Amino acid sequence: MKGFTVLVIAIAGLALTACDRRPSAGKTTAAARGPAEEALMTRAREIFKPIPASPPALPGNEATPAKIELGKMLYFEPRLSASHAISCSSCHNIGLGGADTQSTSLGHRWQHGGRNAPTVLNAVFNTAQFWDGRAKDLEQQAGGPIVNPVEMASPPAHVVEQLEGIPGYRDAFAKAFPGQHDPITAANVAKAIAVFEATLITPNAPFDRYIEGDAKALSPAQKEGLALFMDKGCAACHNGINVGGGMYAPFGVVAKPGADLLPKGDKGRFAVTRSPGDAYVFKVPTLRNITLTAPYFHTGLVWDLRQAVGVMGASQLGAELSTEEIDRITAFLGTLTGDQPKVTAPILPPSVAATSRPRP
Amino acid sequence: MKGFTVLVIAIAGLALTACDRRPSAGKTTAAARGPAEEALMTRAREIFKPIPASPPALPGNEATPAKIELGKMLYFEPRLSASHAISCSSCHNIGLGGADTQSTSLGHRWQHGGRNAPTVLNAVFNTAQFWDGRAKDLEQQAGGPIVNPVEMASPPAHVVEQLEGIPGYRDAFAKAFPGQHDPITAANVAKAIAVFEATLITPNAPFDRYIEGDAKALSPAQKEGLALFMDKGCAACHNGINVGGGMYAPFGVVAKPGADLLPKGDKGRFAVTRSPGDAYVFKVPTLRNITLTAPYFHTGLVWDLRQAVGVMGASQLGAELSTEEIDRITAFLGTLTGDQPKVTAPILPPSVAATSRPRP
Repeated sequence: MKGFTVLVIAIAGLALTACDRRPSAGKTTAAARGPAEEALMTRAREIFKPIPASPPALPGNEATPAKIELGKMLYFEPRLSASHAISCSSCHNIGLGGADTQSTSLGHRWQHGGRNAPTVLNAVFNTAQFWDGRAKDLEQQAGGPIVNPVEMASPPAHVVEQLEGIPGYRDAFAKAFPGQHDPITAANVAKAIAVFEATLITPNAPFDRYIEGDAKALSPAQKEGLALFMDKGCAACHNGINVGGGMYAPFGVVAKPGADLLPKGDKGRFAVTRSPGDAYVFKVPTLRNITLTAPYFHTGLVWDLRQAVGVMGASQLGAELSTEEIDRITAFLGTLTGDQPKVTAPILPPSVAATSRPRP
Repeated sequence: MKGFTVLVIAIAGLALTACDRRPSAGKTTAAARGPAEEALMTRAREIFKPIPASPPALPGNEATPAKIELGKMLYFEPRLSASHAISCSSCHNIGLGGADTQSTSLGHRWQHGGRNAPTVLNAVFNTAQFWDGRAKDLEQQAGGPIVNPVEMASPPAHVVEQLEGIPGYRDAFAKAFPGQHDPITAANVAKAIAVFEATLITPNAPFDRYIEGDAKALSPAQKEGLALFMDKGCAACHNGINVGGGMYAPFGVVAKPGADLLPKGDKGRFAVTRSPGDAYVFKVPTLRNITLTAPYFHTGLVWDLRQAVGVMGASQLGAELSTEEIDRITAFLGTLTGDQPKVTAPILPPSVAATSRPRP
């Protein structure tokens, strides 16, 4: 038997060597993966879905090239803010994982926002927008920060007035919304920004390649992390295409974190539904590109992803994760970083003498 | 004689029709242009130069692709500011003619800068940088706003510490500055930003096509404006490749503007040279892309380009320009807008747990 075992190992070694020569993006066959590998992949495929290669359609908001281009201009348009100094991209920086590096963002007159800026990347796949889910989709979300007094602080009437005062936008809106008599409206601003934001998806993460059949896309440690992520219960909330973003959960299912991480004043979704059961309930955030978007949680007060994993284990699952387990899970989370969007900075139409001026 | 005149006009009309059929980008021959046209073009060519198609080399600062790419990252890097909320691109927005739409920019803690943000576009062709010319080139300029307390407000020592705390920058600097033992230095930050900024040039403006020989690149009104621009004396200061940017001049050669446009407290180049003759002397700004970069002057207090032309006529030339002259000159200035840079927003290396945090 001993000789036989050695032979099997030798053959397995040869097979592995052969495998190593294959391009890493290649798919492995079920037979080549072996039963344990196969079970892990099958289980993962039941819980998660890959980011698609192209943006999903938005119901009732056709993504024409002219509308996407307009949405990109508006996304980068500081003149949508009262001060002309803040745009969507100020806090949702495409170069920084679609977020910023603040606990809570700096807005109008250097005021801090109420909660950590969530990433715009893959936000289209979330079940709702904002930490408390108060916007049902990107279109409903997009107008919020523009008029929020601590963010971009534009008086609502000012948004349309501002854009109408910039001649180049008349053309851009006419092309994006053909046939409309008066296309520069707050509703169309939101529609255009939404179709642009829907393009900000990050396919082709190692984890996506894995659930699409490439067993070698994850290292052994990352696979152990994936197994722990499912075994420990993380995937009960962080699942689906966005590994999160699909449901609401109390912060503190098992043990409420201290007021440092869960300040008493912010009751989360309770402010939206007024239902006592929604106190301290928040949207489960996506973990896509999570290594790019520190700091973490709705307060943005945890800067270390490993610490965040530990807090989640204790507060949500009642599990005291070991250092090694945290390392493995964090290694797995690193596989959720996909191809970042390639966005050419838009050239914005110039102000003219009659354009509204900043009100800092 | 009358019949002869009519014939000449008819032939000229035919010639014009024939010309109209030629592609507008084509060059016209001297014979086709006629003597008056030819004289105008010859004179313009003696005074101005076109923006070249590719960026100029910077002495002692080779523009390798790795260094340009690093420079682009740093240009868009808000973590170079104390707050992590302000980058070079905040005030020198490539989508807004390389400037912002503020009289003076908003910086750290919502403080206003001292002077209007000059455009970064074609800045490489200026004889010196800043309104008072206190930096001799882009490299010397680039580090200034990063540590200026009212702009990005980074303590000087913090710049290197910040970048060293972001693992991805170690690689990026090593590639940009091969062979250096410790390439993350403030000097290299400035070098990299400078080579990126040198790529931000805007060739192919109608006026460039004109001085390169395409007489049809300018309309008759624009040509009249060009002639006025030279006849009235504007071109005495606004000349060369940048139609400005090549010399210093007092604001108020003939008549000092009021304190609204020339506040007593800002003596311009005097602060650099301490020479009494430099009181209220400023660098003559480039007029390239001038229609994109309102508001105007070092105070940024004039929002209408036509008004700015009028002020310049009165204060610099002692000329009371007529409405029609201002219209013509403004029409000419519109021909100075070139192809705007196509810049793909850089993906910045992520912060990690050990990275320095914002200090808002």
